[in-house]
Amino acid sequence: MSRTADEEANLRLVLDMFAAVLNPMDSAAVDRFISPDYIQHNQIAEPGRDGLKRFLDMIRAQTPEAVHDVKRALVDGDHVTVHYHVRRWPGDPGWAVIDIFRIENGLIAEHWDVMQDVIPGGPNPIGPF
Amino acid sequence: MSRTADEEANLRLVLDMFAAVLNPMDSAAVDRFISPDYIQHNQIAEPGRDGLKRFLDMIRAQTPEAVHDVKRALVDGDHVTVHYHVRRWPGDPGWAVIDIFRIENGLIAEHWDVMQDVIPGGPNPIGPF
Repeated sequence: MSRTADEEANLRLVLDMFAAVLNPMDSAAVDRFISPDYIQHNQIAEPGRDGLKRFLDMIRAQTPEAVHDVKRALVDGDHVTVHYHVRRWPGDPGWAVIDIFRIENGLIAEHWDVMQDVIPGGPNPIGPF
Repeated sequence: MSRTADEEANLRLVLDMFAAVLNPMDSAAVDRFISPDYIQHNQIAEPGRDGLKRFLDMIRAQTPEAVHDVKRALVDGDHVTVHYHVRRWPGDPGWAVIDIFRIENGLIAEHWDVMQDVIPGGPNPIGPF
């Protein structure tokens, strides 16, 4: 494996953020992982770190059973890619999501994502993950 | 930069594939880059390498002016991530796409992707790229 110690730390930061923030949808844990200067590229999100907190509070209220099931996670320098399956409730086909995070000074400083509905029984018999 | 020679070669293979296959939508160039055992996870694509060739022929006929504008490309071992903007015709808001490729024996052996419409004038003033 060719990952440097910095890359391993960046990957760990992002996976720890999934475990402490995204999966429990816990806005109180955001500041441990996300920079105050967070640049949010999600198209429908509010900008910034406070917008992320309000988003987490909203989805926890609306879909308290939601899970974010990580399928693969990759790191290249200060960028981390995570491919995961969001299911909002049991039996939800959910979304396929790929996030890219940029780490700066030990915090997540920038985030891009692409989301797509999972299509049950689509033309390709091989699953999206 | 911490990339190994193998990682640089894997990244180059994928970017060369974008230049020779995806941007010109040239099915005749597929075999130089894609494994005969290609595993396709795109939800609406036909499985396999021949399915990819038919897909390229179809999109070149339907949208001959399409562009695939690479915004960032990352590599971690045998996995390459590419974030890009597809515009099917001039002025098309298009799609944001993130692809993940797995390289094996110098060819692209597996592919996952997530695609999402770009929303002109969405609530987040920061663009998706």
